[in-house]
Amino acid sequence: MIDVGIIGGSGYTGAELIRLLSGHPEAEIKVVTSRRFEGKKVSEVHTHLKSITGLVYEGVETSKVAEVSDIVFTAVPHGTTSEYVPELIESGVSVVDLSADYRLKPEEYERVYSRKADKRDAVYGLCELHPEVFEAKLVANPGCYPTGAVLAVAPLVDNGTIESIVFDSKSGITGSGADPTATSHYPTLAENIIPYKMTTHRHKAEIVQELGRLGNARISFTPHVIPAMRGILTTAHVFVKENLTSVEIESIYQDFYEDKPFIRLGAIPTLHSVRGSNFCDIGFEVEEDSDRIVVVSTIDNLIKGASGQAIQNMNLLFGLDERTGLFNAGLSP
Amino acid sequence: MIDVGIIGGSGYTGAELIRLLSGHPEAEIKVVTSRRFEGKKVSEVHTHLKSITGLVYEGVETSKVAEVSDIVFTAVPHGTTSEYVPELIESGVSVVDLSADYRLKPEEYERVYSRKADKRDAVYGLCELHPEVFEAKLVANPGCYPTGAVLAVAPLVDNGTIESIVFDSKSGITGSGADPTATSHYPTLAENIIPYKMTTHRHKAEIVQELGRLGNARISFTPHVIPAMRGILTTAHVFVKENLTSVEIESIYQDFYEDKPFIRLGAIPTLHSVRGSNFCDIGFEVEEDSDRIVVVSTIDNLIKGASGQAIQNMNLLFGLDERTGLFNAGLSP
Amino acid sequence: MIDVGIIGGSGYTGAELIRLLSGHPEAEIKVVTSRRFEGKKVSEVHTHLKSITGLVYEGVETSKVAEVSDIVFTAVPHGTTSEYVPELIESGVSVVDLSADYRLKPEEYERVYSRKADKRDAVYGLCELHPEVFEAKLVANPGCYPTGAVLAVAPLVDNGTIESIVFDSKSGITGSGADPTATSHYPTLAENIIPYKMTTHRHKAEIVQELGRLGNARISFTPHVIPAMRGILTTAHVFVKENLTSVEIESIYQDFYEDKPFIRLGAIPTLHSVRGSNFCDIGFEVEEDSDRIVVVSTIDNLIKGASGQAIQNMNLLFGLDERTGLFNAGLSP
Amino acid sequence: MIDVGIIGGSGYTGAELIRLLSGHPEAEIKVVTSRRFEGKKVSEVHTHLKSITGLVYEGVETSKVAEVSDIVFTAVPHGTTSEYVPELIESGVSVVDLSADYRLKPEEYERVYSRKADKRDAVYGLCELHPEVFEAKLVANPGCYPTGAVLAVAPLVDNGTIESIVFDSKSGITGSGADPTATSHYPTLAENIIPYKMTTHRHKAEIVQELGRLGNARISFTPHVIPAMRGILTTAHVFVKENLTSVEIESIYQDFYEDKPFIRLGAIPTLHSVRGSNFCDIGFEVEEDSDRIVVVSTIDNLIKGASGQAIQNMNLLFGLDERTGLFNAGLSP
Repeated sequence: MIDVGIIGGSGYTGAELIRLLSGHPEAEIKVVTSRRFEGKKVSEVHTHLKSITGLVYEGVETSKVAEVSDIVFTAVPHGTTSEYVPELIESGVSVVDLSADYRLKPEEYERVYSRKADKRDAVYGLCELHPEVFEAKLVANPGCYPTGAVLAVAPLVDNGTIESIVFDSKSGITGSGADPTATSHYPTLAENIIPYKMTTHRHKAEIVQELGRLGNARISFTPHVIPAMRGILTTAHVFVKENLTSVEIESIYQDFYEDKPFIRLGAIPTLHSVRGSNFCDIGFEVEEDSDRIVVVSTIDNLIKGASGQAIQNMNLLFGLDERTGLFNAGLSP
Repeated sequence: MIDVGIIGGSGYTGAELIRLLSGHPEAEIKVVTSRRFEGKKVSEVHTHLKSITGLVYEGVETSKVAEVSDIVFTAVPHGTTSEYVPELIESGVSVVDLSADYRLKPEEYERVYSRKADKRDAVYGLCELHPEVFEAKLVANPGCYPTGAVLAVAPLVDNGTIESIVFDSKSGITGSGADPTATSHYPTLAENIIPYKMTTHRHKAEIVQELGRLGNARISFTPHVIPAMRGILTTAHVFVKENLTSVEIESIYQDFYEDKPFIRLGAIPTLHSVRGSNFCDIGFEVEEDSDRIVVVSTIDNLIKGASGQAIQNMNLLFGLDERTGLFNAGLSP
Repeated sequence: MIDVGIIGGSGYTGAELIRLLSGHPEAEIKVVTSRRFEGKKVSEVHTHLKSITGLVYEGVETSKVAEVSDIVFTAVPHGTTSEYVPELIESGVSVVDLSADYRLKPEEYERVYSRKADKRDAVYGLCELHPEVFEAKLVANPGCYPTGAVLAVAPLVDNGTIESIVFDSKSGITGSGADPTATSHYPTLAENIIPYKMTTHRHKAEIVQELGRLGNARISFTPHVIPAMRGILTTAHVFVKENLTSVEIESIYQDFYEDKPFIRLGAIPTLHSVRGSNFCDIGFEVEEDSDRIVVVSTIDNLIKGASGQAIQNMNLLFGLDERTGLFNAGLSP
Repeated sequence: MIDVGIIGGSGYTGAELIRLLSGHPEAEIKVVTSRRFEGKKVSEVHTHLKSITGLVYEGVETSKVAEVSDIVFTAVPHGTTSEYVPELIESGVSVVDLSADYRLKPEEYERVYSRKADKRDAVYGLCELHPEVFEAKLVANPGCYPTGAVLAVAPLVDNGTIESIVFDSKSGITGSGADPTATSHYPTLAENIIPYKMTTHRHKAEIVQELGRLGNARISFTPHVIPAMRGILTTAHVFVKENLTSVEIESIYQDFYEDKPFIRLGAIPTLHSVRGSNFCDIGFEVEEDSDRIVVVSTIDNLIKGASGQAIQNMNLLFGLDERTGLFNAGLSP
């Protein structure tokens, strides 16, 4: 049994970690912390977890968390991990950090986030592309947009045939967290779609870094919020150097994602096929008489885009089948 | 031309007053105040009003507002009207107050709202039941729930045949205002329905007062918020002393609402027939072998339930046809 | 291992049976039929089930289904079960029928559905009230509205203190099935709420029958469709003969639902606490100076209101813990 | 007074024509036809129009429509206009056709729609780009996607600096009409976003034709349906040959759209600023250190994208100010 600690367990990703780990046959949550809800039952804050977990939010120190845990998930805002991660790592526990703090190369992190990087080594936990996760001590769990975007086109970039890609991404609003904001206000978002940070979203740096490891391609990225709770659909407008047939592309994807149980290739997916699951569904269409291929990927931003992927990383870190506790169908409709 | 002032014009009801008055042939807004947005263009805060109004929010004193206005709409939170209404009335301008402060008899107000009442005389501005609005100086614009509930059953209560009524009301979230809250958070409200203040909502006192003027009936009231921006649908479960046929009921309603242009009788309505309009649609069904009649009414909570009704009151106060500037179809779908 | 057959497995309840049984440790689906999709993979019709099930819809005869199954779920429209159920029962397999055909006493069925009843004995499968399910051969799986309504008030009716109840129910649209209709058209339902069959819904007969077994109470029932995919929230306006305190009511509910793992008592629930789960959440509020108690229950209409409850019945029929394969948290938000 | 006929008035665009013309001071609807609803009141089919119009759907012949009309709006499916338009034109009435049949050059129409073109001369009624509308007899009212896409980038294409454009468009579901379909089924669309005809949508031909009149640019176009009733948001990823500053771009747009009352330039718009209005809102952001500009436009697909623009064309045809009867704010929220 893997003993798990969760630091910052009151938000949406924390609640998903608790929900998913409650059904995990090889892991047990030993402690979950929250400053805001210290002393409250998890199931009072997240009522769907009633009868499922008897956990109570604690306000304990990092050292105490380290003591009772084999692995700790840190689900705190970027820039605040330095309060926890170094001490945890030094205590010898494994860490999967769900913030952005360890995802980029230090110099790139400092440029993009305008704050000092902790230069500790971490593995970028997009498991399908980073088999070396299994031997990491610190895993940087990927951002939600990069997960959908990178998985959508990695086989083609790796194949060396891409000239440029325009990622036009559409996300459910849970990506911005559990606290009410002007954008998450129902009368603002319902019956609407809201482009934001159209040329400046920080997740672009992750996409560029990860695709850059595979090949060259010019990357553009623009996100939107749609009236949905969960899910990211990424429309990748891919421009190729030389034309590929549908059959060739299919074979490129199948080879690349062989033995990757959470990648499902097929018809153009929508959010409904993945909501509530750890799957990433991918489909594509080749434009006739054109150098454009449109690739669409969908994920559940809170699962494959956050907590599910974090647990997938934990599975790999501890030598388990990556599917353990995660290989369930989503909820549709 | 009627010169209009609006105090507290930055919220949803303020924006609706501005939108509706922009198309009113006999009224002109002279001043609109907002402490929060002083100096900002109305159309920067409410972007749908761009090119429609050049008004700028002002932070001026009540006396200045009174000076340039024939009528003032006060759209401020209940309990804060005492800063404005007495001075306005004393300056001789007419006032339509959209808060709850003048809707109830003073002693009832003090019981329900636990604060001191201003004992000034006001007319309850549910125009269909209060023809005396035309000679008022101060109109208390009705609450959104009471507008839908009272109009739904007034003819039957007036007819003397009702034993008891259970009002089960469902409202869009704009009823709770433009500021984000835990309930208005999209991930909370989407795909949900939320009962609240199930036995304690203050609007019950208005319903009891207004129906009590017409006859005796035992009143129960429970509100819910639904995933919709606008609209209130009220399901009135009416229990009668002696059975009435559909034909009799239809005739009771037609007589009662003769010459009331904003009441439309017919099939069971939904929010879509009234959204964006000042209409109140009413339909009913008589249960076979039972003393129950189910009456359903729908209104747009921001129009007939707030700003539209306020303008309807203004029309009557100034001797205009009550339809002036208001008699347009809603937006559907 | 329990061998399972599903007749009529292409709709929403069929898909939920397949999804839930895929994760059930003691059951295995041997055959699933669909006339419309014969020969198609289940995962082509319900794409969220890709990689989860390799089943293919078959068009085989009832006798063949009976041959390979210990239990058969019939998920076909009411009035068509006679094609399947009698033959299945005679073959000696257990049947859980998800239609309305065996829920009512035959004479009542004939009155309400205007068609001939099959007079075969069946147990009404609301497990919390019918412990005798364990020895049934034919279980009539309850309707979605009755499940929410009956569970909400059964303890109070059983207690003998109720005078009358007005059930005002609000359902997600999946209750009306997977085929597009005028009501399920997005522009009709979004931003709306639609009352229907306000005094004539057939589910009332089930509610009356089941509560009538426990005590006397006058029942009214009116359903509405809300803009939500899943879930039923039932607002029960309960009028009592003599007043009860909150403490007394709590104790009545706790006693009645002791050892019922899928009933969760507590704060007023919403759809979000149960969506995706087999739980029924119940909360109440006592009106001051009044004989009214408002009880609210929520269920997922496709799970506790259909397929989950069907599996709960299967568990009981086969001597398993009723939680087997079902005791997971829902998906929220 | 302009006498108006509407052929095919029962769908969403028909209902919007009726709603908007009911408030038009210089036009009067003389006849509206519908085969399906012949003999029914318009307000029975579109209940929000009750008390607003007393019109009854008629099944009369084209010649009768021509007789009583100065102008006829044909709102029938593409490919069926030949039943009406030639006869109307020959009768001497003006026609605004809302189908696709006259939008493209005949040879292009035949290629794209695989049917014979009526080679009659028509003006493409995107008024902001086609001032010659005022002297047309037959106006081809633009498609909804092309309206949003072309208006978004016309000034830049006209300026000669564009290399290529990727249009990623997101539309409300009313664009696909009033009849329920698998895609418009609420459980399919809610909490979802659905890409479709990603490389093959016929509206691309209109976009290419209209932008081609202004300059050279490589065009890609991919549409999506979002969970919204109304509105199209177009994200135009524009790649330029040489960089432009924000100030330069602003000035290019302001010059191009000077005196175009329905174009509003400013901050990045959303659907909420235009829903219910005839405005097209446009905003942009220049990516730093890049040749990409992201331009966003929003329209109400049923108004500026269909019926409102049709009336704007009528206004111009009859020498009225193009704003007549159309210059109102939308409904927000």
